[in-house]
Amino acid sequence: MAPPVQPSPEPQALADLVRRHRFAEPVPVTSPTMPSREAYQRSLARLWETRWLTNDGEFHQQLRASLSGYLGVEHLSLCSNGTLALLLALQAFRITSGEVITTPFTFPATVHALYWNRVRPVFCDIDEKTFNLDPRRVEALIGPETRALMPVHVFGHPCDVEALQAIADKHGLAVIYDAAHAMGVRYGERSILEYGDCSILSFHATKLFSTIEGGAIVTRSRAQRVRIDYLKNFGIEDEETVIGPGINGKLNEFQAAFGLLQLEMLDDEIRNRQRLAGIYRRRLREVPGVLVREDVPGVRHNYAYFPILVDPHRFGMTRDDLYGRLLDFNVRSRKYFYPLCSHYACYAALPSAHRDNLPVAERIAERVLCLPLYGTLEDAAVEQICEILAALQGAPPAAALPGRP
Amino acid sequence: MAPPVQPSPEPQALADLVRRHRFAEPVPVTSPTMPSREAYQRSLARLWETRWLTNDGEFHQQLRASLSGYLGVEHLSLCSNGTLALLLALQAFRITSGEVITTPFTFPATVHALYWNRVRPVFCDIDEKTFNLDPRRVEALIGPETRALMPVHVFGHPCDVEALQAIADKHGLAVIYDAAHAMGVRYGERSILEYGDCSILSFHATKLFSTIEGGAIVTRSRAQRVRIDYLKNFGIEDEETVIGPGINGKLNEFQAAFGLLQLEMLDDEIRNRQRLAGIYRRRLREVPGVLVREDVPGVRHNYAYFPILVDPHRFGMTRDDLYGRLLDFNVRSRKYFYPLCSHYACYAALPSAHRDNLPVAERIAERVLCLPLYGTLEDAAVEQICEILAALQGAPPAAALPGRP
Repeated sequence: MAPPVQPSPEPQALADLVRRHRFAEPVPVTSPTMPSREAYQRSLARLWETRWLTNDGEFHQQLRASLSGYLGVEHLSLCSNGTLALLLALQAFRITSGEVITTPFTFPATVHALYWNRVRPVFCDIDEKTFNLDPRRVEALIGPETRALMPVHVFGHPCDVEALQAIADKHGLAVIYDAAHAMGVRYGERSILEYGDCSILSFHATKLFSTIEGGAIVTRSRAQRVRIDYLKNFGIEDEETVIGPGINGKLNEFQAAFGLLQLEMLDDEIRNRQRLAGIYRRRLREVPGVLVREDVPGVRHNYAYFPILVDPHRFGMTRDDLYGRLLDFNVRSRKYFYPLCSHYACYAALPSAHRDNLPVAERIAERVLCLPLYGTLEDAAVEQICEILAALQGAPPAAALPGRP
Repeated sequence: MAPPVQPSPEPQALADLVRRHRFAEPVPVTSPTMPSREAYQRSLARLWETRWLTNDGEFHQQLRASLSGYLGVEHLSLCSNGTLALLLALQAFRITSGEVITTPFTFPATVHALYWNRVRPVFCDIDEKTFNLDPRRVEALIGPETRALMPVHVFGHPCDVEALQAIADKHGLAVIYDAAHAMGVRYGERSILEYGDCSILSFHATKLFSTIEGGAIVTRSRAQRVRIDYLKNFGIEDEETVIGPGINGKLNEFQAAFGLLQLEMLDDEIRNRQRLAGIYRRRLREVPGVLVREDVPGVRHNYAYFPILVDPHRFGMTRDDLYGRLLDFNVRSRKYFYPLCSHYACYAALPSAHRDNLPVAERIAERVLCLPLYGTLEDAAVEQICEILAALQGAPPAAALPGRP
């Protein structure tokens, strides 16, 4: 996409800008919340004492209980990572053939989990505002092979859960939410994880809440939870009974102990991110061509990400140019999610992957950029990033600046 | 199986025996080697500094290099656990349909990994001496749907690799070794992991070498290793390219750091186990009805387990009775592997699962018992366990002893 012609600062002025506003150290797009090392060492002392390192140990049991309490959900099963949680959930609901309607605007794990279960993904376009599966586009994609909907609460922003459930109920489909981004999000009085048939969380190091690697499945009934617990532990009932083909999806004690300490810090982390998001919004609302997303009334947001949309015509450069230019300032943003999953070679040949079917997702994927956001980021750093964006608005494309690779 | 009538000590004599020889604390069947906590805390200090907690970090890279060096193998890929390693290896070799010939005398993961890849297991009987797939029984099971052999080096004891390879070559089959038990085992001049098309290791906490949870795949070419590295990281090539459907099979930095320290202790651990196995053998060779396994010339054994076979006629009680009786002495043995995988409800209906096809495996599974073995077990404890076994020989069945549940 060629950048439009706009009035723009001279290259010399830009070089001055870089000199003035460049961060001395790279600013990552995210940084994991680290619990106190001393506290973690106390947990380790206990592990060295018990030598119980995995297999539903005491930290695992405590984390399951604490997380359930924090989230306000009844049935939760911990997993070694979020992708395995997706795989296990699909197996638990026996969604292992046919088609599932999902979004192309997601991390590859969502769609790959379908592939590994021999399910054909059917890509559905997304909503302009929420970046989530557009319920108005879902129904036309339902056919005799459809087994389920797999929507994603992208960036922790709730899907239109009522509209999606109404469609699923009408057509007898399961709803499996990829809630990898939605830790701690509440919708009205309830956890967002209580919608649909089950929800999958990711606790990867890059996530708001982390167990180093990790994930969880929140189900609506004890029976489903028990089934998942079998599936993630080889189907073992007792030393002499294996009830079915399960794999190893266990979260170990080192991960659980890390998570328990991080959970204590989560509300502070969310508050810090909320404050930083507030600065971004206040400052960037003033920058032409940068679209920020606002909080939704009735939702307890988690501020897991700070995505902006870059309008190349109004901003004066494309998202890709901005991404590259920010690197000159030592700011690491992320084109999240670009490209769409429907562009991957393994899915591009699917009829639903054709770009004409996904106009909104295509446009968002070309324009979206996630800016640095994490609790230990300083207010002044966010102000500085906003100043850089404001100054770059209307600047010439990155190629014009000498020294860019 | 009813125990045969034999001369046996009076119940009163037995109760005295328990009083005399009972361990004050339970003796587990295994116990993980724990690296120095101080050394692990130094690794943690580094992780707290870099905040790089997973995704091919420096500990992961070091462990890959150190393990490759230790094992003397060129192409090794680390995985989050051994079962995922099996799943990924089957995907890498595109063994995702048809049949694979495997052993029923194994941990459920071996067979479940086939099921998850939509491969029908074909159970083949085992060899009386090695407990491994009997090459003489393999060829009759090969049909037009056969894709591969998946033998297991049970208890780290090498399969008849030459005979199996000759059959595979003759019929154009892949050979995927489940080497979960075979860490560090050498066969002649080479690592046992260098046989077949690839080998899978498990580094679960209960294994000889551990990364808490973990595993690895050893392949024969760089291309295979690279393919597996894609498959275990979502198929991601770079920030904007996904080359195919992969999942998350990553070993995190906390696991890798643990493994690096444990690896330094491995040779000592094997030496300690070798000495303890020597005591077991020397003492138990004298006990009628207890069969111990001896080292094989030309093999560097790893002493991962100490399995015995209990002949109920000569020993005077069944393996199950002995297992229960040992609990009275606070000794936790393990019926490893019992029942056979071919007995699980999910596989029992397969034609190859019929017990008449698996006479050796059926008999071994009824008689095998793994006795406690780990580096920190004391010589005196092994002597005491041997004394208990010697004294129990010819004793009445457990049911005759008052106070047993």
